[in-house]
Amino acid sequence: MTATMTDIQQLSINTIRTLSMDAVQAANSGHPGTPMALAPVAYQLWNHHLKYDPANPNWPARDRFVLSCGHASMLQYSVLHLANVRKQDGSSEPSISIDDIKNFRQLHSPCAGHPEYGMAAGIETTTGPLGQGIANSVGMAISARWMSAHYGQDSSDLFDFDVYALCSDGDVMEGIGGEAASLAGHLKLSNLCWIYDDNRITIEGSTDLAFSEQAAVKFTSMGWNVVTVEDANDLAAIDKAFENFKRTNDAPTLIILRSIIGYGAPNKQNTAGAHGSPLGEDEIAAAKKFYQWNNDRFVVPDEVLEDFAEGIGQRGAAAYRQWQSQWEQFSSSNAKLADEINMIWQGKLPGGWENDLPEFPADEKGLATRKASGKVINAIGNQIPWLIGGSADLAGSNNSIIDEENGGHFSANDYAGRNFHFGVREHAMAAVCNGMALYGIRSYAATFFVFTDYMRPSMRLAALMKQNVLYILTHDSIGLGEDGPTHQPVEHLSACRAIPNLAVFRPADANEVTHCYQAAIGLSGQPAAMVLSRQNIPTIDRQQFASAAGAQRGGYVVHDVDNPQVILMGTGSELQMCLDAAEKLAKDGIAARVVSLPCFEVFDQQDAAYVESVLPSNLTARVAVEAGIRQSWDKYLLSKGKFVGMNGFGESAPHDVLYREFGITVEAVVTAASQAVKETS
Amino acid sequence: MTATMTDIQQLSINTIRTLSMDAVQAANSGHPGTPMALAPVAYQLWNHHLKYDPANPNWPARDRFVLSCGHASMLQYSVLHLANVRKQDGSSEPSISIDDIKNFRQLHSPCAGHPEYGMAAGIETTTGPLGQGIANSVGMAISARWMSAHYGQDSSDLFDFDVYALCSDGDVMEGIGGEAASLAGHLKLSNLCWIYDDNRITIEGSTDLAFSEQAAVKFTSMGWNVVTVEDANDLAAIDKAFENFKRTNDAPTLIILRSIIGYGAPNKQNTAGAHGSPLGEDEIAAAKKFYQWNNDRFVVPDEVLEDFAEGIGQRGAAAYRQWQSQWEQFSSSNAKLADEINMIWQGKLPGGWENDLPEFPADEKGLATRKASGKVINAIGNQIPWLIGGSADLAGSNNSIIDEENGGHFSANDYAGRNFHFGVREHAMAAVCNGMALYGIRSYAATFFVFTDYMRPSMRLAALMKQNVLYILTHDSIGLGEDGPTHQPVEHLSACRAIPNLAVFRPADANEVTHCYQAAIGLSGQPAAMVLSRQNIPTIDRQQFASAAGAQRGGYVVHDVDNPQVILMGTGSELQMCLDAAEKLAKDGIAARVVSLPCFEVFDQQDAAYVESVLPSNLTARVAVEAGIRQSWDKYLLSKGKFVGMNGFGESAPHDVLYREFGITVEAVVTAASQAVKETS
Repeated sequence: MTATMTDIQQLSINTIRTLSMDAVQAANSGHPGTPMALAPVAYQLWNHHLKYDPANPNWPARDRFVLSCGHASMLQYSVLHLANVRKQDGSSEPSISIDDIKNFRQLHSPCAGHPEYGMAAGIETTTGPLGQGIANSVGMAISARWMSAHYGQDSSDLFDFDVYALCSDGDVMEGIGGEAASLAGHLKLSNLCWIYDDNRITIEGSTDLAFSEQAAVKFTSMGWNVVTVEDANDLAAIDKAFENFKRTNDAPTLIILRSIIGYGAPNKQNTAGAHGSPLGEDEIAAAKKFYQWNNDRFVVPDEVLEDFAEGIGQRGAAAYRQWQSQWEQFSSSNAKLADEINMIWQGKLPGGWENDLPEFPADEKGLATRKASGKVINAIGNQIPWLIGGSADLAGSNNSIIDEENGGHFSANDYAGRNFHFGVREHAMAAVCNGMALYGIRSYAATFFVFTDYMRPSMRLAALMKQNVLYILTHDSIGLGEDGPTHQPVEHLSACRAIPNLAVFRPADANEVTHCYQAAIGLSGQPAAMVLSRQNIPTIDRQQFASAAGAQRGGYVVHDVDNPQVILMGTGSELQMCLDAAEKLAKDGIAARVVSLPCFEVFDQQDAAYVESVLPSNLTARVAVEAGIRQSWDKYLLSKGKFVGMNGFGESAPHDVLYREFGITVEAVVTAASQAVKETS
Repeated sequence: MTATMTDIQQLSINTIRTLSMDAVQAANSGHPGTPMALAPVAYQLWNHHLKYDPANPNWPARDRFVLSCGHASMLQYSVLHLANVRKQDGSSEPSISIDDIKNFRQLHSPCAGHPEYGMAAGIETTTGPLGQGIANSVGMAISARWMSAHYGQDSSDLFDFDVYALCSDGDVMEGIGGEAASLAGHLKLSNLCWIYDDNRITIEGSTDLAFSEQAAVKFTSMGWNVVTVEDANDLAAIDKAFENFKRTNDAPTLIILRSIIGYGAPNKQNTAGAHGSPLGEDEIAAAKKFYQWNNDRFVVPDEVLEDFAEGIGQRGAAAYRQWQSQWEQFSSSNAKLADEINMIWQGKLPGGWENDLPEFPADEKGLATRKASGKVINAIGNQIPWLIGGSADLAGSNNSIIDEENGGHFSANDYAGRNFHFGVREHAMAAVCNGMALYGIRSYAATFFVFTDYMRPSMRLAALMKQNVLYILTHDSIGLGEDGPTHQPVEHLSACRAIPNLAVFRPADANEVTHCYQAAIGLSGQPAAMVLSRQNIPTIDRQQFASAAGAQRGGYVVHDVDNPQVILMGTGSELQMCLDAAEKLAKDGIAARVVSLPCFEVFDQQDAAYVESVLPSNLTARVAVEAGIRQSWDKYLLSKGKFVGMNGFGESAPHDVLYREFGITVEAVVTAASQAVKETS
């Protein structure tokens, strides 16, 4: 096809193409055009550039490959199969077998519609929602830089690696893609290479319909090194572009690759018709003819497997061996550090990390839970040096800085810093944290709670990928006061609780902050949201009331009475109202139990006996108090429960005025409780 | 201060500054630094450029002013006060009085923490969440272009206007800002002018910490005209920049304005300390000294009011009179068109718009609700020519195109087109639709339901601003099949239902689509989400079952029996399962009522008697069936109800396989119903 391709290269590339076409056709669903277009660059990257040992897919220093245009998943599956990537380190079983490819998009096949992290070794992150993969890749590149700077000493190449991401027009059109590019350029992440599939076709037709940026100029303006490859089939030009990337040491690199979607399919190439549907048997036959291919399905010539074995197989094995011996050397002379590093790689926490967490004395004036959070994450950060993260330009308000003096700030001048200035880029922040978590770093992202709306797609992916990302979310209700309804979360507790596998904590006082963090950091495979007040909250006297340690079970009885007639349930700033209401109710002769429910997700996972002991099912007089909407509380309120909270947007005023305005008061709780007792007795 | 300022200009500008400082100090909360920095540009724009009549703030052809950096709200309130903008057209009452300013950030003051649409005339949109205002401004500029092209004939200047937006670093760092800029450049919206407050300070410190883009180059790469003003106090340079904008006719204009945050406050200017807190009495005194101001608070010199009266007051009144006579001329010669245009301006719908909506014959094979939706919006679009919108590059899949042949596509070459190619930019799409809705256009935004996560902040603002934006959201559950969990909404029904004032519809068959649209389009001051299936759904035989017209009440009994023992409730693709289950249950001797609940929000607003007639409170044996999570259903399930649905993420497989895999089957509904009957009897 082009002068720069040898026969075996051509054969290998066409194998990727035909596997992809065949799998999409067999599934009768999927995206054939992009794998056909990008087969050459994927081939050249994997077989001739990537530092990757197919026999050890979890090698920590491997280069990362991210298919940000996840709909082109068959490209990745084909390459993983041909490169003979194994199920796990040292295994002889393939991560993706030819049968898996034949089962593309079928239940439990590792070849899912879009690449799913955890379904097969070699899939470094879940992609599909556009822009996420490239933003994850920034987090991965940061991980390499931070590890090298923090642990590398004289052996920084032990930890360093490159990150390659294939991306589409959609990835760079999405806002998150722009945020991630801007941040990567700012941080001069020269170990990051995006390959932009400039095919000029989107689902609705030509990109001209909606998109007319000069990509090269735009990325240059954001501090990127930009290389253009005019023909996606020109392997020599692709090689040169990768070489250019490797020798650039002060900027990330964008390779703009002019490609033809559906390359080789005579009637559908270069049209939107090649994007998201099977080509059809006739068009496949015609394309195979163009590729000089026979018409059988799922053909993998032996020479192609040999080509990959001699390419990435041998190169990867040698690189891995070399690294392994370096690592052994490093480990033997830095045993303690090596232990620590192994914990990162294995996703473990140091023993006793939770031993020195702060206890807070009872205090009626109290402390904003965001301030308590600041103290607690500093205590945890002392124990877990790889708990690193930052805020989307609200660090001071979020109290999210760890050990400012010694921790330093991560920047192009100091990759060892642990505090990140993410800029006003919540979405990229959350996706970058996903990328860091996928490496093994305990990453955290901080912003105002209401702005979870800006980063929800990435939070969802953390939950789906089972990554331990921590979200520090302050200014959690109308309690933030004067900034008004745009800044006051109302529906966000329910909306975040709705995300499967996301643990949402809303501690009720400083000591619950400590115990909620203990639970959250201890979670395995679950992201956690820590929802915190701007305003002061009394620190509950734990001599008088139950220990805050109960918060670790998600919910617990804070204040009990003999023969309770009603249960008052609250979280965060509203728990104190429940305690005050219980006191008043007692004077009225009504016995009220008070339950704190800082984390529904954790509470619901407790054994049935414990749940029943906290919320006896026959005690149906219940009142929930939370300065948010009712939706997520209905399950605890049963049919007769009352709710004291919000049922619409907030307003702009001092916080005490707002609580009165919206009727979230001790008096309202007392009235609701009396009513509930009456209706159920 | 600078040579280009006259004394009266200086006085007016310093009045804006001191009012802002004083109000923030009095509220003990707010953002003084940006109003102080931007007072000159705001003054010059309002008093010398803006086509705006303070006596007629709702003049449809007025230029729009958007304060995208909404935290600088006192800048806007000060200017609205000084310009004597009235409460409504022709009123003599001020939109913002000096007492309102003294009540900055207090309950029910129109001077809320951030500008709130609807709280005072002159506030064109609610801002505060960064990036939203500039994205709204694109929608406003589009509205002018569309109106001129669609209705203007030889009088296009009747409908045209300019849109100015003041924006901060945060606005342009946010992904949505990038998306909006890219779209505006692509569409060559030369009536759009953003003034970028390049103050190089963010909350965490210098912008250098997180941001190092070359803004001028970046915007040029996106098709913008870029002008730089080196000194925000240089009124002559500001004038030149506005003149440059006005004569540019092929691109939007970015004015990069180098400013000093907190200008004039000797100790805090040019620091993050001037951003988000009151300056303090001492610093205010020092700043006032610098401004040669006396130390009184809330001082408004008479000359300043005269300056504005002679500037924007006279200029605006003349412009309005001229327009008014042109409009009368146009109206008299185009009476029918003028009626239509008045409906847009007044937010009305043409009589009988709902008369010709399609009815669909019973059909067991059925129709995907997205396909029915395509037919229905075309029928509505025929009646309401200003129902315009588009998709984020999924128009074909969303079935969101209206009258492709005659409707045309909106582009830089055809501003009369009604179908928009928004590109892969969900977030900007939704915010642009807000901007169009604020003009009066019935805008709609289409994408896959799961990608509401990408545009949630703008959907929330539509709800908060009470704008009738329509969201067409297809591929609504695991029913989309092979694309897998990244594309399968699971929590999104609950998460969208959680947004106050957003009406979420999930029609159960083609005829419910018709009636849900009838309800949704008829809503006043509520955005509506239409949640639609990818897969075919049987069209229910309405001879056998109740009319789909009940869908307009949000919920209705589809199938009833004498003395029902159990209620089966469903939405969308799961309603048919309820009907099938009821049939099976009848054979087992269990009498089951089937209720369709396409819109909880509308149903919950029905009178109590109707709600009770559909869901009798003593009938506690209930089963809800929905291919999403349970959360939002608990309120209807009471304490003993059962739920058949999802409790985690989906998987990649054909949709029928997935329904079986996740146990969402007729058998499961039957089992749950039998169980519920047993437990409640």
